Amino acid sequence: MSSYAELPVHRWMLRDTERNEAYRRAMTHVVKPGDVVLDVGAGTGILSIFAAAAGARRVYAVERTAIANVARQVIEANGHSACIEVLQDDLENVTLPEKVDVIVSEWMGGFGVDENILAPLVMARDRWLRPGGKMVPGRVTAMLAPAYLPEFDDAMAYWMSRPHGVDLSLVARLTRQESFHTQTPPESLVAPPQAMWSHDPLTCSLEVADQSFTTRLTFEATQTATFSGLLAWFVAEMGDGTTLTNAVGEPDTHWGRTLFPLDGPIEVAAGTKIEIELRCDPSLPGSCEFGWTVKVADRPAEVHDTRRIRSGAGR
Amino acid sequence: MSSYAELPVHRWMLRDTERNEAYRRAMTHVVKPGDVVLDVGAGTGILSIFAAAAGARRVYAVERTAIANVARQVIEANGHSACIEVLQDDLENVTLPEKVDVIVSEWMGGFGVDENILAPLVMARDRWLRPGGKMVPGRVTAMLAPAYLPEFDDAMAYWMSRPHGVDLSLVARLTRQESFHTQTPPESLVAPPQAMWSHDPLTCSLEVADQSFTTRLTFEATQTATFSGLLAWFVAEMGDGTTLTNAVGEPDTHWGRTLFPLDGPIEVAAGTKIEIELRCDPSLPGSCEFGWTVKVADRPAEVHDTRRIRSGAGR
Repeated sequence: MSSYAELPVHRWMLRDTERNEAYRRAMTHVVKPGDVVLDVGAGTGILSIFAAAAGARRVYAVERTAIANVARQVIEANGHSACIEVLQDDLENVTLPEKVDVIVSEWMGGFGVDENILAPLVMARDRWLRPGGKMVPGRVTAMLAPAYLPEFDDAMAYWMSRPHGVDLSLVARLTRQESFHTQTPPESLVAPPQAMWSHDPLTCSLEVADQSFTTRLTFEATQTATFSGLLAWFVAEMGDGTTLTNAVGEPDTHWGRTLFPLDGPIEVAAGTKIEIELRCDPSLPGSCEFGWTVKVADRPAEVHDTRRIRSGAGR
Repeated sequence: MSSYAELPVHRWMLRDTERNEAYRRAMTHVVKPGDVVLDVGAGTGILSIFAAAAGARRVYAVERTAIANVARQVIEANGHSACIEVLQDDLENVTLPEKVDVIVSEWMGGFGVDENILAPLVMARDRWLRPGGKMVPGRVTAMLAPAYLPEFDDAMAYWMSRPHGVDLSLVARLTRQESFHTQTPPESLVAPPQAMWSHDPLTCSLEVADQSFTTRLTFEATQTATFSGLLAWFVAEMGDGTTLTNAVGEPDTHWGRTLFPLDGPIEVAAGTKIEIELRCDPSLPGSCEFGWTVKVADRPAEVHDTRRIRSGAGR
């Protein structure tokens, strides 16, 4: 995994024109001339530059990692050094000389809360956003749907096939406890997506932002189909009437969709009930652990947990 | 970058059937019944399993990272626990109870020496290989060729295009100081490849294995073409008369080819001289820093250095 301190991950985000254009439009709409803006997790500084270009009087770009040095140079090259101040520090250590009119942040993981940044964002809101101030994005909703993912099923079949005459079934067992980012799944949802949870960072309490996120949903297959995993994504309201999403069927973004695999593909008939419980627990800064339980009709429930990888590797 | 302690990078190598089959065949040919084998950097243990299956009496699988726990389980699942001993430690801390007949290791980076493992491998040879013992692979030769890489040129053009109205030329400048692994370059070499250096781990001195690796080569364009970067790869002799290679034009492996970019594409006519100096300096364990100088005909020389990324990010 690339660290946010390093250029490759930022190059990847900076090539995501869906993401960048959504933020550029939102800044143009939300930021009024003379506004003060706080950019939380500024990275290479592009959202701060959009805010400055939209007329902000002052932008505070807070970035914890050394990529802040790249941000300073990009901001200078764009002629915004006088307007944008880059603060390389943890958000909670930062002291601003004034309240802000707008907080902008690209804090979403594959399905919103899974990068564990909502709580610090809410704390920054309580400290620095003036009454009546705005946040971009606004409401972020996490979505889930059972789906058919033949590429993943093929990979699992490979690990079970005794390649080179070697039993590698352990690799399959460990892999089924991981979540994956998948850019190009077939767009064959087994049932319509449902919302898992939804947060408006402007009104969300710290208590809610800081908890584990759990959902229980029942899906009903809409046709006879192969169910091979759960796909999750988000829909973010950008404050200008548009949304930014990594939903299945929408243009690709750097997020892809998050896949929670099954033990193996399950054939389901139209009308089959699929009961899901999905849990997202904050763990390290920037990451979560996941657990998912899947019960199809009368079959026994499958229990998956990302913590099992480490315990599996550790025994 | 995934760490060698983590499953994803091993899953990637374990799906590389070119790599695995080459080692499996080599073990079948080189290991004689009753042999003692040392596997340096055993990872998930698959090369040790090949050695055991080929008739080894005893295999010592040395692996520094926690993936050793996965190796133990895979070895058990394959019925080789009595034969293969997994030693989780740095190679230099390991003490074996006997000399070995064969040392097997998958130590090659994108062009051989660039994962900085040749020197520890040579030290292990001097300590543990019995006189007359064998090493797999044997000779490894690093190759280089100027090539046309339109995908990379397109990416650079993107960073120079003021996307979203923002000057991101710094990203292009930093990117040109990096090396890249590229899986599917067009197979359009601008000039025939030449060898950079070649090492036989069985005879290589520690002094040679531990130095910086530098080459100076002159290429001559074979046709009018676009020269956009240098591609490097290796050819490894596996000890059974076959080779394992990630060369351009050969089947894909997990290594891809290593790309050293230019500042921008250069049109060259047939017969144009291209002078190269490429330097590979051991840095951290498992990695090197690179410098490359490219002079085309009478143009000024371009100087690239991976250290410039960090200094660029740090000023």
